[in-house]
Amino acid sequence: MTTEPISRFPIPDINELPEDIKTRILAVQDKAGFVPNVFLVLAHRPDEFRAFFAYHDAIMEKQSGLSKAEMEMIIVATSNANSCQYCVIAHGAILRIRAKDPLIADQVAVNYRKADITARQMVMLDFAMKVCNQAQSICDDDFDTLHSHGFSDEDIWDIAGITSFFGLSNRMANFTSMRANDEFYTMGRSFGQ
Amino acid sequence: MTTEPISRFPIPDINELPEDIKTRILAVQDKAGFVPNVFLVLAHRPDEFRAFFAYHDAIMEKQSGLSKAEMEMIIVATSNANSCQYCVIAHGAILRIRAKDPLIADQVAVNYRKADITARQMVMLDFAMKVCNQAQSICDDDFDTLHSHGFSDEDIWDIAGITSFFGLSNRMANFTSMRANDEFYTMGRSFGQ
Amino acid sequence: MTTEPISRFPIPDINELPEDIKTRILAVQDKAGFVPNVFLVLAHRPDEFRAFFAYHDAIMEKQSGLSKAEMEMIIVATSNANSCQYCVIAHGAILRIRAKDPLIADQVAVNYRKADITARQMVMLDFAMKVCNQAQSICDDDFDTLHSHGFSDEDIWDIAGITSFFGLSNRMANFTSMRANDEFYTMGRSFGQ
Amino acid sequence: MTTEPISRFPIPDINELPEDIKTRILAVQDKAGFVPNVFLVLAHRPDEFRAFFAYHDAIMEKQSGLSKAEMEMIIVATSNANSCQYCVIAHGAILRIRAKDPLIADQVAVNYRKADITARQMVMLDFAMKVCNQAQSICDDDFDTLHSHGFSDEDIWDIAGITSFFGLSNRMANFTSMRANDEFYTMGRSFGQ
Amino acid sequence: MTTEPISRFPIPDINELPEDIKTRILAVQDKAGFVPNVFLVLAHRPDEFRAFFAYHDAIMEKQSGLSKAEMEMIIVATSNANSCQYCVIAHGAILRIRAKDPLIADQVAVNYRKADITARQMVMLDFAMKVCNQAQSICDDDFDTLHSHGFSDEDIWDIAGITSFFGLSNRMANFTSMRANDEFYTMGRSFGQ
Amino acid sequence: MTTEPISRFPIPDINELPEDIKTRILAVQDKAGFVPNVFLVLAHRPDEFRAFFAYHDAIMEKQSGLSKAEMEMIIVATSNANSCQYCVIAHGAILRIRAKDPLIADQVAVNYRKADITARQMVMLDFAMKVCNQAQSICDDDFDTLHSHGFSDEDIWDIAGITSFFGLSNRMANFTSMRANDEFYTMGRSFGQ
Repeated sequence: MTTEPISRFPIPDINELPEDIKTRILAVQDKAGFVPNVFLVLAHRPDEFRAFFAYHDAIMEKQSGLSKAEMEMIIVATSNANSCQYCVIAHGAILRIRAKDPLIADQVAVNYRKADITARQMVMLDFAMKVCNQAQSICDDDFDTLHSHGFSDEDIWDIAGITSFFGLSNRMANFTSMRANDEFYTMGRSFGQ
Repeated sequence: MTTEPISRFPIPDINELPEDIKTRILAVQDKAGFVPNVFLVLAHRPDEFRAFFAYHDAIMEKQSGLSKAEMEMIIVATSNANSCQYCVIAHGAILRIRAKDPLIADQVAVNYRKADITARQMVMLDFAMKVCNQAQSICDDDFDTLHSHGFSDEDIWDIAGITSFFGLSNRMANFTSMRANDEFYTMGRSFGQ
Repeated sequence: MTTEPISRFPIPDINELPEDIKTRILAVQDKAGFVPNVFLVLAHRPDEFRAFFAYHDAIMEKQSGLSKAEMEMIIVATSNANSCQYCVIAHGAILRIRAKDPLIADQVAVNYRKADITARQMVMLDFAMKVCNQAQSICDDDFDTLHSHGFSDEDIWDIAGITSFFGLSNRMANFTSMRANDEFYTMGRSFGQ
Repeated sequence: MTTEPISRFPIPDINELPEDIKTRILAVQDKAGFVPNVFLVLAHRPDEFRAFFAYHDAIMEKQSGLSKAEMEMIIVATSNANSCQYCVIAHGAILRIRAKDPLIADQVAVNYRKADITARQMVMLDFAMKVCNQAQSICDDDFDTLHSHGFSDEDIWDIAGITSFFGLSNRMANFTSMRANDEFYTMGRSFGQ
Repeated sequence: MTTEPISRFPIPDINELPEDIKTRILAVQDKAGFVPNVFLVLAHRPDEFRAFFAYHDAIMEKQSGLSKAEMEMIIVATSNANSCQYCVIAHGAILRIRAKDPLIADQVAVNYRKADITARQMVMLDFAMKVCNQAQSICDDDFDTLHSHGFSDEDIWDIAGITSFFGLSNRMANFTSMRANDEFYTMGRSFGQ
Repeated sequence: MTTEPISRFPIPDINELPEDIKTRILAVQDKAGFVPNVFLVLAHRPDEFRAFFAYHDAIMEKQSGLSKAEMEMIIVATSNANSCQYCVIAHGAILRIRAKDPLIADQVAVNYRKADITARQMVMLDFAMKVCNQAQSICDDDFDTLHSHGFSDEDIWDIAGITSFFGLSNRMANFTSMRANDEFYTMGRSFGQ
């Protein structure tokens, strides 16, 4: 297990955190078996922590026309476009698990156009990359293309919302030098999982 | 008063919104004399609305080594880099008021390097633009430069947090075609205010 | 009224300028009520001053299929792409007046794709941005698109000419740190003008 | 001699041009032995023609701390950055002649950093490229660097003026598909000239 | 084991390949336990195959001041900059093995500036990225920086040679839609290897 | 004849080179009348020299649906995109000779879209530029476009192979500051050759 710093900023002692934050962190630890560093790094600022995870849950835990795996594809593709180590590695792990596919995350990260995805998912990721890199040029044609692949307006909001939120997350992770936990690198990599 | 649509998505009836959201909207209306469209556009999704404004308040309403005007400068400069009409126009208005300067917002929006700002503010905006455009390259030298102009590590987090959050906001505004209220264009433009 | 320098270079005394330049400056002062700084900054070099304004008049004062407001839209959109404070602010003022629309200039400056303009004007600005940013790729398809929106070949020359001339102007303004007059910021901002 | 069109737009009959334009064109023909196409292409619009060449003469025919060859280096380097065939080829010819160097033009066009030029000329071209590509970032440091290589403020204006003017020229040449005369390709290419 | 196509182009039957190519492929199969797809995809053109691997061996199998792991870092970082799935995934595997570090490849791929590497390796990768993205601007200062971190001129050639060769490889892999073998994804990922 | 250095690295004495390399160099000298500097510069590393020219011959000397002139067009256009003096100048000379056209090389180098080439060659160069600048986005549509202009899959491989190989060559030439021989500048420039 590496002992490299996980942030440029101080990491609070879990026991000294506000009760709600401590509870959330212990819950994720119970579920995942470890505490993803994003929880510890952002706990440096409790109010931002609360808002960050409330936003995360609002877009990631909702009912959606996007599958859980598709949501993670968006995160992985746009996070590599933003060169965000934490999000590519951590959400790469989650994508492998959600998609039950040990190859998909590395493929989507490096070049989603060559990944084992459907035509619909390709269009979804084309749009996510446009939200990421040139949101100012989004136009009716983009909506038409997405509609023609079965995405509803609410699904399109989900794509844009996830991309926008992780654009924030990517910038904060790069800014804080947030380190991905060693556990993420190997999760979901066995074939017969 | 223009009657153009303010979003690609439906705008909820204020009276049918959850109580907390309705209350927040009425409060801002009381204070500002009108409801900024961002409240109405994002109310389409109550959970995201709550998280969005919780994040906003967490970074904008906190004690900071940045003045209120400096916070708005960051928003205006990076929002023009992202070609976000809503944020440049709405926060341009707030910047004029916070800085008690009718010229500053247009200057900062178009080219902050030529604006009537201090050397310290120039360094602050250089860094905000780096968080906006190439956060992956943030390095120790950036922190050293900011420290040498009197910014603490917490101040630097504030710069990065504001830039990152409004990067999210800019993308959602461009995605939804969020329209700036007519009121913003003229606020804070008289000299002797 | 601010007393910031309006140029990196010396500003000549109007009374010591060649007669034709002095006459032109006094005429614009009579008409506008003040001397736009571009006249004072460029008067540092009388021959370039004369050529600059002769070019300006040749493309801006001619009969054209473009309305005066459309000409100003081109200037405002491309000048923000070139981050030119002087031209965005000064021609933003003129655009508001020409279009009798207090909102249009800020909209066009930040993101013309979201502005209150016609489909024809959108195509015009798409082409102006191509002349501004990648003139080497202009091709027959661009002319076809413009023709199909009613632009003649001569109108297209007007779009290209205005964009090219203000590309020169933007670079000289950024180079000289040409300062926009305070008057421009508020011109044309009242609704019932 | 090729007979390809030299412009997308009509080329006027020299004899039907206004007298001053006809005179200028005949003078250049006398001197060069042929009429460079820029004169014929721009004569389609006499007022713009007059202003264009007045501007050209104002910056190119003046006394300057830059040598004639240095002026042409600026044009060649920035015109290739703008992918302008006419200006690279025509001014490449003039550069070879001015510098009495058959190699210099192709070197400067493709990569001035590897050309047979002095350290002073390298700094001059670095600055010209900044005016060409990111004039918004020009700052005091740029002036300091240029001063330290012996450029006066007026020389720096010359660099900026030439770059800005040919930025206009490059865009108009690409827009009109202005064709370089065959003669330019071989001018100044013999060693012992 | 996936059965997706590994190239847009036909894959030759190993037994029908020229003897030298067949021998090389069987040798790599013996050593690795499988045939990396690059051998099969490029065998479509035997002469290019021979030259490609001769070049590969000339830069990768030579004595060098760079360690084998450092060579692979260069490949992984620049191949992600070129969005090349095959090379990031295949050479990511080799990097993990060469460095005996299960984390290093993903870190270097996404953002080498945040990877667990030495200051010397950081400078090496900064230069590799410059060769990859803007070789035209390489200058004496780059050599000075590399010398000051202990790289000899021959080491610097090695960095440039590896980057240049894999730039070729990245383009051919993206062009052919070369698929990375499933085996690469998991190689070198266990901690105590 | 200039006596500038032709490389940052040592140039070996031809007589001390391995026999095969010496033979190749003398053969090219016999044929061309001089030794192109690329042979001398790369001979610094015999194994890389051999692989480089084997690759060169494999793609340039093969039977192809591309004419010799078309191959050179690809090199010249992409080498200017990579700002590579050596390749633009040396292969510009070869292009003029292959095409028996003294104008074509300068046209293609600066802006192939305005060159005297066929529609088929335009499509070929569009694709070469995509391989050069954004190979990750190559897709079925690109192949369809090329097929519709008569290119076979093997021809398309030739375009990609030439572009990729000269991308390597361009980077090594910029890295080594490889100087083009004076002879290249004037070859093929007379009309009636």
